[in-house]
Amino acid sequence: MKKTMNTSRKNRKICLVVVGSIGIDAIKTPADQKANLLGGSASYACASASFFTNVGMVGVVGTDFPPAFEELYEKFNIDLSGLQKAEGRTFRWSGVYDADMINRRTIFTELNVFEKFSPELPEEYCSSPLILLGNISPELQLRVLSQAKAPKFVIADTMDLWINTSRKKLMELISKVNMLTLNDSEARLLTGEYNLRKCAEVIRKWGPEYIVIKKGEHGAMLMTGRGVFIIPAYPVDEVKDPTGAGDSFAGGFMGALAVERVINDNAIKRSLLAGSVVASFGVEDFSLNRMNAISRLDINARLNELKNMIDFN
Amino acid sequence: MKKTMNTSRKNRKICLVVVGSIGIDAIKTPADQKANLLGGSASYACASASFFTNVGMVGVVGTDFPPAFEELYEKFNIDLSGLQKAEGRTFRWSGVYDADMINRRTIFTELNVFEKFSPELPEEYCSSPLILLGNISPELQLRVLSQAKAPKFVIADTMDLWINTSRKKLMELISKVNMLTLNDSEARLLTGEYNLRKCAEVIRKWGPEYIVIKKGEHGAMLMTGRGVFIIPAYPVDEVKDPTGAGDSFAGGFMGALAVERVINDNAIKRSLLAGSVVASFGVEDFSLNRMNAISRLDINARLNELKNMIDFN
Repeated sequence: MKKTMNTSRKNRKICLVVVGSIGIDAIKTPADQKANLLGGSASYACASASFFTNVGMVGVVGTDFPPAFEELYEKFNIDLSGLQKAEGRTFRWSGVYDADMINRRTIFTELNVFEKFSPELPEEYCSSPLILLGNISPELQLRVLSQAKAPKFVIADTMDLWINTSRKKLMELISKVNMLTLNDSEARLLTGEYNLRKCAEVIRKWGPEYIVIKKGEHGAMLMTGRGVFIIPAYPVDEVKDPTGAGDSFAGGFMGALAVERVINDNAIKRSLLAGSVVASFGVEDFSLNRMNAISRLDINARLNELKNMIDFN
Repeated sequence: MKKTMNTSRKNRKICLVVVGSIGIDAIKTPADQKANLLGGSASYACASASFFTNVGMVGVVGTDFPPAFEELYEKFNIDLSGLQKAEGRTFRWSGVYDADMINRRTIFTELNVFEKFSPELPEEYCSSPLILLGNISPELQLRVLSQAKAPKFVIADTMDLWINTSRKKLMELISKVNMLTLNDSEARLLTGEYNLRKCAEVIRKWGPEYIVIKKGEHGAMLMTGRGVFIIPAYPVDEVKDPTGAGDSFAGGFMGALAVERVINDNAIKRSLLAGSVVASFGVEDFSLNRMNAISRLDINARLNELKNMIDFN
């Protein structure tokens, strides 16, 4: 039996389940460098979603996982009953960013306990209406999805690695999700098309109604059968660490979507804008540091500021 | 006496004067390559402004300037009484774009008749309320400005070359304009600051109330003392040639501003959005080809489309 982490959760209804990596990062940016950072797609996505809704985390950590990190999850009110603790070391990643804060070089990746990870959803997660499949192998993403009973909206993130090495599983996954997020070069790699609208058209035929092309500091584009929408990024004064920005964007989006009464194009656009704002906070410091220092009020204030920045009436 | 080109202009009031380069370009992009193209900052800016207002062009061409290009200017209803024809060859430029359609390499630049160019405003241009100083040397930009009697709004574009070689003249120019446009690296080079808001603050202290940071396919940002505004770019399906996009943006902006009843922040934001839309058409083909194929109606339609793309209500 897998051991899962105890949490003093008060039987809250889980509205969003997030699966992804949980890691200990060492990161160097032009601004600074830090080691022993709490990282991983699930960490960023859960923290971001937690501003809006009850989120449950599915992932694995090793026996070396610092109690302080666990306490931080608790502080964000993240439900940890889907978080496994396995014998061995936690996943580790180290990277160095170029001056442009976009391109990065991986120094090392240690899978550690992640190597044998098999996600298992606690009973109370299986009826969650929203599922966020963070950027891990399509096989693991599918395993999570197969345990969800009747999800209303599923978002999946992916990357070039899986497009190149697990295309078949990835295609199976894509056929089962409502929204796929990827960047422009990944969209081109996946479809063989250059024009991004055509890329989105091709992917939409495979299943997902919504395609989000992520453009980092330049925001994102939502492509649907009804048109293209621009999701602007809040112009951050000083980016300290862009790690996890895409995960925060997705997590903030799904969190905001959880509080919408109906899921339609307008709700999705609004929620994507909220996700963009949460991500803009995230990059202002390393790890979850900045997100740990803000509240929903800060998010709302910046959301209004961003809306004013694109008001042309 | 300088010879200027005859035009059958019906004594229209000139609302916008544009000075800039007029060239014959040879351009290679990943999409295609073409020679003997009508180019230059004044060509793009005047054509773009012409959709909205009466624009007069100040520049110089050689005796080899093809009559077909002159006819095209006439077709755009551009007033040519400020356009000099000098003995010799027209300015020529050749460039090759990288796959990203952003970075480009200059193959050659021949100044030709531009070398001895001294802009002279016809009498009827001197009272124009709007002046667009395209990207030429600050010395020439200042010479145009000194002939304007009481301009209401002056925009100037510049580039790294002038920042590096004519900083003193450029600073004098900057102190006299209402809006300066430049890209992020130029803003940093000019001010020595990294953070773009700080760059804008520094430049604003030198004179201009409005700073526009151009970001190519990602749009632009307007920085004022009252806040930052995002000018999105229309997502073009296929960029064929990005040459002149910044000039079209500035020209379309000033043209749209000419039809605003008052010049305030809202009018400026609206006009910048219009400029962004005109520029998005421009890059869909080489030279002025695409602009020659559209009307104000096409611009309005795309403007509405772009507004819908950023509507989050």
